Amino acid sequence: MSPHIKLAVIPGDGIGPEVVAEAVKVLEAATAADDVTFDATWFSLGAGRFLETGDVLTDDDLAAIAGHDAILLGAVGGVPGDPRLANANIERGLLLKLRFSLDHYVNLRPSVLFPGVPSPLASPGNVDFVVVREGTEGPYVGNGGAIRQGTANEVANEVSVNTAFGVERVVRYAFAQAQNRPRRHLTLVHKTNVLVFAGSLWQRIVIAVAAEYPDVSVDYLHVDAATIFLVSNPSRFDVIVTDNLFGDILTDLAAAISGGIGLAASGNINPDGRFPSMFEPVHGSAPDIAGKQLADPTAAILSVALLLEHLGLTDAAARVTAAVTADIVARAALGTPRSTSAVGDAIVTRLTD
Amino acid sequence: MSPHIKLAVIPGDGIGPEVVAEAVKVLEAATAADDVTFDATWFSLGAGRFLETGDVLTDDDLAAIAGHDAILLGAVGGVPGDPRLANANIERGLLLKLRFSLDHYVNLRPSVLFPGVPSPLASPGNVDFVVVREGTEGPYVGNGGAIRQGTANEVANEVSVNTAFGVERVVRYAFAQAQNRPRRHLTLVHKTNVLVFAGSLWQRIVIAVAAEYPDVSVDYLHVDAATIFLVSNPSRFDVIVTDNLFGDILTDLAAAISGGIGLAASGNINPDGRFPSMFEPVHGSAPDIAGKQLADPTAAILSVALLLEHLGLTDAAARVTAAVTADIVARAALGTPRSTSAVGDAIVTRLTD
Ligand SMILES: CC(C)[C@H](C(=O)O)[C@@H](O)C(=O)O
Ligand SMILES: CC(C)[C@H](C(=O)O)[C@@H](O)C(=O)O
Repeated sequence: MSPHIKLAVIPGDGIGPEVVAEAVKVLEAATAADDVTFDATWFSLGAGRFLETGDVLTDDDLAAIAGHDAILLGAVGGVPGDPRLANANIERGLLLKLRFSLDHYVNLRPSVLFPGVPSPLASPGNVDFVVVREGTEGPYVGNGGAIRQGTANEVANEVSVNTAFGVERVVRYAFAQAQNRPRRHLTLVHKTNVLVFAGSLWQRIVIAVAAEYPDVSVDYLHVDAATIFLVSNPSRFDVIVTDNLFGDILTDLAAAISGGIGLAASGNINPDGRFPSMFEPVHGSAPDIAGKQLADPTAAILSVALLLEHLGLTDAAARVTAAVTADIVARAALGTPRSTSAVGDAIVTRLTD
Repeated sequence: MSPHIKLAVIPGDGIGPEVVAEAVKVLEAATAADDVTFDATWFSLGAGRFLETGDVLTDDDLAAIAGHDAILLGAVGGVPGDPRLANANIERGLLLKLRFSLDHYVNLRPSVLFPGVPSPLASPGNVDFVVVREGTEGPYVGNGGAIRQGTANEVANEVSVNTAFGVERVVRYAFAQAQNRPRRHLTLVHKTNVLVFAGSLWQRIVIAVAAEYPDVSVDYLHVDAATIFLVSNPSRFDVIVTDNLFGDILTDLAAAISGGIGLAASGNINPDGRFPSMFEPVHGSAPDIAGKQLADPTAAILSVALLLEHLGLTDAAARVTAAVTADIVARAALGTPRSTSAVGDAIVTRLTD
């Protein structure tokens, strides 16, 4: 019996549909020879859908998506400052709602500086680390509020919520990742000297779980110091585990030093398998270049590699990564930039030749 | 009548005393010709004092410090992991207590890449911006707590508190800074798409105050995107205004790209003048190199320039900056690193020659 995988595809807004089209082409090419079929359902969600219908993500949408085995997402969000979107927070109402509802407690973001890719750093060294960002807690929980809004006496609060349950499960995942990497090193990033309660919880749990992983070396950095090392000595990092907000900040910086967000893939993972995991490029919808075939689909295609890996299709995942790596190396020799679909086609050719 | 300035000096721990010694030498040399005298009171505070007496900062200490016109601080904090300091949070109990008690609502952190200084960036361009970091609100307020600590059901919260009063005063300060700079550009950095209540407050206040500064152009960046621009195009920044935690993170990154925290100065400013402002290098106490005359006192000396500027001694401030700039340019020609005091002496020589 050949495995039949139900894939939810959310192309989204801006460049999302263009990069997703290439990612799906690559997904099909990479698994054509395998005993597996993908059955894709396309969901029209994002700023465009909101402007048409007034809906961001209905309960029916969510239930339908949850019935799939995995999700591939392009990018969501309209033109910044569009007054028709002023009261719709697409990010919170769609992207974060999916991450929270589907219990994506691991936000996995690898940073690799591929051969030949220019870095803004003068001497980047060997950049090859992965950030395990917590995905369902911290300052992202939506536990904020304001009183006397719009007056001189307004007070606006945001609460970061951190639980032993939530921290322990993501820390365990990070240790398991570190255990399987050649360098076996894990860095906790937080701000324990200021956020003393949340910081203490993270620190105690890392210390406790570390005892079960004697082969993994562990260190700690304050988030401010971590940004310094990311530009002065990124090769010191192997696995970083950190909270939702610090992870958001560090992974954009990490993407920047390893060739830009055009190359940065991510997985929003529910390791329990109770809900489908969601794979997406780290970049946004970039409405300014949408529809022009200018976007680089590489990040979306590398997200397909993470998706395949997650589904246990490790050979296909490795083939995608190898094809992308070869394509990236070949890019330096090309004089002119290629269209979005030309990049996808080139990678498909490498997979099928 | 010659102005008589009462200066509180807090050398602190680690390399603090060494860099402060040079900073005070430079302060005296820079103002020797002026009609002004400095009367310094030295306060023994920090991890060392805590280990001797059990006190971090007493009410008497605070009252005595508050009676001065300005504060010069080196660095505080003991050896990381020292078990005797496990229950003393020197950062919160001393540094943050001073900033909050003395209402240092502006944390001013200029980033300038001086000529000849190596940056980790391949093409840094013209780096010359200033971060106006809020200093008395946000996630730094110490409004956190935990229940069921140490159990599997622990919940640890941290509350970011933001007020119209607190945001407006720092935003006004930032606009006034931008108005006086050649490029007159201000960037608000926040995370409005996730921290919607705090973000909305910041955004509304920036828009409102912007109306009073028609000459200042304004833009907005999410904190994650700001880190990308800091490494890919730092010359786009002129004045950044941001909250306490984002400012902490961005200014370490900013220091890293502009030559390292050995050069980064800061002012914790109470613009109202109700309390003394405090000037300190951004770097920490670096206990590993303490007492060896290895620390670079430049950041402490540049903090003296900010102190002089704040006291209205603008000519003396300009002389210090010029002497430091000349010294930094001359460094490249030196084969070997100089001792802490040799750097201070060289700058004093430039001031007195
Ligand atoms: C769009 C936004 C809500 C999101 C986040 O903050 O997590 C994005 O920056 C990301 O990193 O995926
Ligand atoms: C030591 C620490 C509390 C402090 C801060 O977080 O503000 C430091 O990092 C700084 O930037 O001055």
